[in-house]
Amino acid sequence: MSGSEATAQSARWLTSFGEALQRQDMTAILALFGDESYWRDLVSFTWNIVTVEGRAGIRSMLAATLAQVKPTTVAIEGTPRTTNGITEAWFTFDTCNGRGKGHVRLRDGKAWTVLTTLQELKGFEEKRGATRPLGTVHGAIRGRETWSDRRTMEEAALGYSQQPYCLIVGGGQGGIGLGARLKRLGVPTLIIDKNERPGDAWRKRYKSLCLHDPVWYDHMPYLPFPDHWPVYTPKDQMGDWLEAYTRLMELNYWPSTACRAASFDAARGEWTVVVERNGERVELRPKQLVLATGMSGVPHTPNYPGADSFRGMQHHSSRHPGGEGFAGKKCVVVGSNNSAHDIAADLWEYGAEVTMLQRSPTLVVRSESQQQHGRSLYSEEAVQAGITTDMADLTVASIPYRLVPQFQIPVCRKIQDADAPFYQRLRHAGFMLTFGEDESGLGPMYLRRGSGYYIDVGASELIADGRIKLKSGVTIERLTEDSVVLSDGTSLAADLVVYATGYGSMNGWAAALISPEVADAVGPCWGLGSGTNKDPGPWEGELRNMWKPTAQEALWFHGGNLAQSRHYSRYLALQLKARMEGIPTPVHRGMIHTAS
Amino acid sequence: MSGSEATAQSARWLTSFGEALQRQDMTAILALFGDESYWRDLVSFTWNIVTVEGRAGIRSMLAATLAQVKPTTVAIEGTPRTTNGITEAWFTFDTCNGRGKGHVRLRDGKAWTVLTTLQELKGFEEKRGATRPLGTVHGAIRGRETWSDRRTMEEAALGYSQQPYCLIVGGGQGGIGLGARLKRLGVPTLIIDKNERPGDAWRKRYKSLCLHDPVWYDHMPYLPFPDHWPVYTPKDQMGDWLEAYTRLMELNYWPSTACRAASFDAARGEWTVVVERNGERVELRPKQLVLATGMSGVPHTPNYPGADSFRGMQHHSSRHPGGEGFAGKKCVVVGSNNSAHDIAADLWEYGAEVTMLQRSPTLVVRSESQQQHGRSLYSEEAVQAGITTDMADLTVASIPYRLVPQFQIPVCRKIQDADAPFYQRLRHAGFMLTFGEDESGLGPMYLRRGSGYYIDVGASELIADGRIKLKSGVTIERLTEDSVVLSDGTSLAADLVVYATGYGSMNGWAAALISPEVADAVGPCWGLGSGTNKDPGPWEGELRNMWKPTAQEALWFHGGNLAQSRHYSRYLALQLKARMEGIPTPVHRGMIHTAS
Repeated sequence: MSGSEATAQSARWLTSFGEALQRQDMTAILALFGDESYWRDLVSFTWNIVTVEGRAGIRSMLAATLAQVKPTTVAIEGTPRTTNGITEAWFTFDTCNGRGKGHVRLRDGKAWTVLTTLQELKGFEEKRGATRPLGTVHGAIRGRETWSDRRTMEEAALGYSQQPYCLIVGGGQGGIGLGARLKRLGVPTLIIDKNERPGDAWRKRYKSLCLHDPVWYDHMPYLPFPDHWPVYTPKDQMGDWLEAYTRLMELNYWPSTACRAASFDAARGEWTVVVERNGERVELRPKQLVLATGMSGVPHTPNYPGADSFRGMQHHSSRHPGGEGFAGKKCVVVGSNNSAHDIAADLWEYGAEVTMLQRSPTLVVRSESQQQHGRSLYSEEAVQAGITTDMADLTVASIPYRLVPQFQIPVCRKIQDADAPFYQRLRHAGFMLTFGEDESGLGPMYLRRGSGYYIDVGASELIADGRIKLKSGVTIERLTEDSVVLSDGTSLAADLVVYATGYGSMNGWAAALISPEVADAVGPCWGLGSGTNKDPGPWEGELRNMWKPTAQEALWFHGGNLAQSRHYSRYLALQLKARMEGIPTPVHRGMIHTAS
Repeated sequence: MSGSEATAQSARWLTSFGEALQRQDMTAILALFGDESYWRDLVSFTWNIVTVEGRAGIRSMLAATLAQVKPTTVAIEGTPRTTNGITEAWFTFDTCNGRGKGHVRLRDGKAWTVLTTLQELKGFEEKRGATRPLGTVHGAIRGRETWSDRRTMEEAALGYSQQPYCLIVGGGQGGIGLGARLKRLGVPTLIIDKNERPGDAWRKRYKSLCLHDPVWYDHMPYLPFPDHWPVYTPKDQMGDWLEAYTRLMELNYWPSTACRAASFDAARGEWTVVVERNGERVELRPKQLVLATGMSGVPHTPNYPGADSFRGMQHHSSRHPGGEGFAGKKCVVVGSNNSAHDIAADLWEYGAEVTMLQRSPTLVVRSESQQQHGRSLYSEEAVQAGITTDMADLTVASIPYRLVPQFQIPVCRKIQDADAPFYQRLRHAGFMLTFGEDESGLGPMYLRRGSGYYIDVGASELIADGRIKLKSGVTIERLTEDSVVLSDGTSLAADLVVYATGYGSMNGWAAALISPEVADAVGPCWGLGSGTNKDPGPWEGELRNMWKPTAQEALWFHGGNLAQSRHYSRYLALQLKARMEGIPTPVHRGMIHTAS
């Protein structure tokens, strides 16, 4: 199809779509969708993050929402393009409460996928550009309050004489980015974090750590990295960025503050959250509570027989200080995902004798290959082509999770072909490889499990040539005073055991901070319900409980990698702002099954 | 002229210009210029900042430079536009050493104004976008040096075991912005500043201070303010921005460091600079010395008879702590420029009884009017129209200083008309107004004198209605124990006298730090030689000694407002980089008269 035909076809489709929506004409709307079709909505129709499938799913979603949402003014944006018989077009639209942006994929003239997203709330737009504040009041004003006065007063009052509307527990990149969005939306927010300084969650990790994702993928909202910023940000530099960002965005951030307990008073619609700030007990009363404590949840440390008798050092990967001081020491790293590889390589760099214990097959993909084949929307080429970070984020979001594997299988195949000798050497060293049950590679595995993979930045080579020793397909039977005894009867002398054994689900934080009952009611976070290894069904169509209403009123989970945190913080912030402003937010549950 | 005719005409002119330059055909080049014509060069042809006038001036400049510069590849950029018979076009070009950007104004088919600027040095391009550093080395490396290690070592070595190539004295926005450019160019640089923290030069000023220029005018290089940043940045917020910027740009910055003395060893091509860092004497040996201590130079404090006997408080405006604590006190502010007005209004806001002593006519322009009529290139409308900060800076630079008044007189007239009642009320209160001898307004007065004006943010209203008392056309005869005695025989009771009496020329810093002889050889900084009040001739065509070679080898002056510091730091940085790399930099002096 030529460019102009694609444009004409998309324009016709969008005109019909817009008219049918405006008339709330269900039959006409459904007639525009193909037999296989998906509608993904980010907060604009459903006040939820939902994908519905097929005409039946779409009908059910629209029946519940259309009359309240009152969609209007669908208008094409930019120039559609056609690839392999699929025409893609962007559009804008209005709802009664907000302005949205959408994306459609047409196949044979019918919609295959539709994405609708809420971009801003009418009457509550962010103050930016032409509507930015003046910063000063010209004229002479006795008792003038300066920016500095206001910041000082706000900091002194918040959490004491004034309660934040929203409390974010966890001040890593997730909490900080969400905090920035809420600040721009005028939602009084407090972020608390156990570390001494913003960015410490990065600074305190092992010395050689750099982001595994490239810079184009990692921008924070509003203030992108300057164009000399390195491709893979070193951890301390990332820490500095986050600290400066927190300051420049004027976030209310309490460092050295631990969350001790939280409970919700449904009658008052208010949380009571007990925190310890520099050792002082403070009781906070926010209306909304966001857990942004890391998508990884509570560290999972196995308790092996004999562990108490082990005289060396042993700790979970999240507490590992780095390889310094372990030269010549015998180190066992239990696990074979990202952290295990990074820690093993770091120990080796410091001259330790390292053995990795691989318990199950692991997905490995070289960082360069992932960037080259799997991240083209986030690259210098994309920047040159005028693809903004927002557009890239929305493009990724436009692919319903059901279809992600079929988009990713060819990418995974390409990477396996390109890196065949690399994979051959790893296998030869005894490394158990997987590319996912359906060979769909990194993206789907991350969505399904949030684990199970290593983005290779060097450790695989050490394993392939035996500089890091590998024991695979074994488990630990027990520990002795000075060794690890394995299920195959062999044993490894050990001065250090690092348990890179992963984390529980994020709702473990809810169990620890609120109650096991609330955690159970909410159910696990993350995962799609794909029915693959460690992601049991039923199919959810979305990441469970992330950035969206949960079974516990006023409790939210925020997290994910930098790109997800950046993009989905927008929708979480709009949901919180709408509630603060008293805008009705009837939640359509879509296919969401709560555990209760 | 239609758009396409303008394009065709510009394209023809640029083709001829490019061919004539490449052939080094002086006759052909000169034939392309009108009788009244100007060529402004920023470092690309002259290794200097020079404007030559008329065919004779252009001939002389080209005769001295063409054979060395070897200009080639002139190419039109963007779409020319024609307004009032003047066609403007952008172009790019190459020299043997660099890549440049230029601008031409054509009148009747001939060049009226030409601007040529050096944008980068071939082989020494800034690492950005596709050439940014990787940030990590993938693979396993024993003894790996991390970003943090390197920063720590660099900070420990610089100034002790390793000497900076360039030392910048003064870490305000000027020094910081230049430092960022030099960092990106790989020029080892150290910035020293007497204050405790970057940004303190702003923080320590009176409480109500906000930038008088709007945000679009004030961006630092590389990292623009985010789009929610206020129009007029409050001083403490600006301080925070500069502090974060210094950190994020990884500048080597010594706070709490005073420069005590500097001398140049011509034989070694090296400075010896004695500084006191946190009380420790350190001797630095940079090859280049930049004074970025504030374009205002050394504070000028008059010494009136009887000042010693005055029992109240008296100080120069630069030391004024702000109005807090002066409620009910009798305060005399000597002077009527920006600082005088700001300090008087601030004192009034704190409840002081304030009298301003105006000694000579002052240019006053309301901030809003200046922004509306005089700064359209730096505005939200310009952003929406796709005018980048770089383009705005180059557009401003494209107007030769000789022509600035004729561009500004209509703007000044428009402002006087629009604000006629405002000015009438000021006059009625006894305020002596001027708009410059040629009624050209703020811009030219700033360029000629760097003083003589007030950008009104509220004080004028206080003067107009008498809340701030005014004595104009008088001078101080002497001080008594408790009063100021004026030349008209009256006297003012006073608890506080603030001398907002301005600053000497920047070369006063050279006199204080290096020697009076060097300062005299260099001559005054700033000013165009316009022959107007406080800007004696001869005509220089450029700001004296700013951002360009001076009569003292390896001594440079950097400063100006945020926009000038941002834009001209590029050319100063390229001059320093070229010298570091040993690229020949024969300086064409143009019309520059040195004082020696």
